Amino acid sequence: MDNCIFCRIVEGGIPAKIVYQDDQVLAFEDINAQAPVHILVIPKRHVAAVQDCREGDQALLGHLLLTCSKIAGMKNLAESGYRIVTNTGAESGQTVFHLHLHVLGGRHMTWPPG
Amino acid sequence: MDNCIFCRIVEGGIPAKIVYQDDQVLAFEDINAQAPVHILVIPKRHVAAVQDCREGDQALLGHLLLTCSKIAGMKNLAESGYRIVTNTGAESGQTVFHLHLHVLGGRHMTWPPG
Repeated sequence: MDNCIFCRIVEGGIPAKIVYQDDQVLAFEDINAQAPVHILVIPKRHVAAVQDCREGDQALLGHLLLTCSKIAGMKNLAESGYRIVTNTGAESGQTVFHLHLHVLGGRHMTWPPG
Repeated sequence: MDNCIFCRIVEGGIPAKIVYQDDQVLAFEDINAQAPVHILVIPKRHVAAVQDCREGDQALLGHLLLTCSKIAGMKNLAESGYRIVTNTGAESGQTVFHLHLHVLGGRHMTWPPG
């Protein structure tokens, strides 16, 4: 999608600090980091949010979560811990309507989660 | 696991306000709700956290996220929006070491997410 900032990052049209990618997913640093480690994990294919996923997306969604775990390991968070967050829709605070999972760590995370 | 409170909920040994289940997953109301809607979605099989999942768990993880979406629809959050959160490890605030995804909605969610 031409007007999607994350699709443009996937295509290389907008720079990002990429930390991992494979054929299906891309992970890069959040430019508004809320923790010492704050990575976004997105599918390369455009889908707006979890709410827009269907049964056929099950493997992709699982792969996104496993990628979060992989990145946490790369960032030495496997022992200390980390939070995974995804927003869908206006009340959640979603601002970019391309599915993305936040991986946050490197500090104590408080409760409630926003 | 005998000493896991969520395994005991799965087995029926501890009551919970169950909102959905199938052969793989169970969803019930969080007893310390942080939003008008606050549901926990867990695998029936014990696994401690996302960090403990392996490639063979990909389909289960995808199913957990799709179940969050299904429950959001049941709770009339599909339009207004909702946040999905999962904690892994001590710094994240994880308190029950049986994988669970929080679905929070019915209010504006703030940023950062804890």
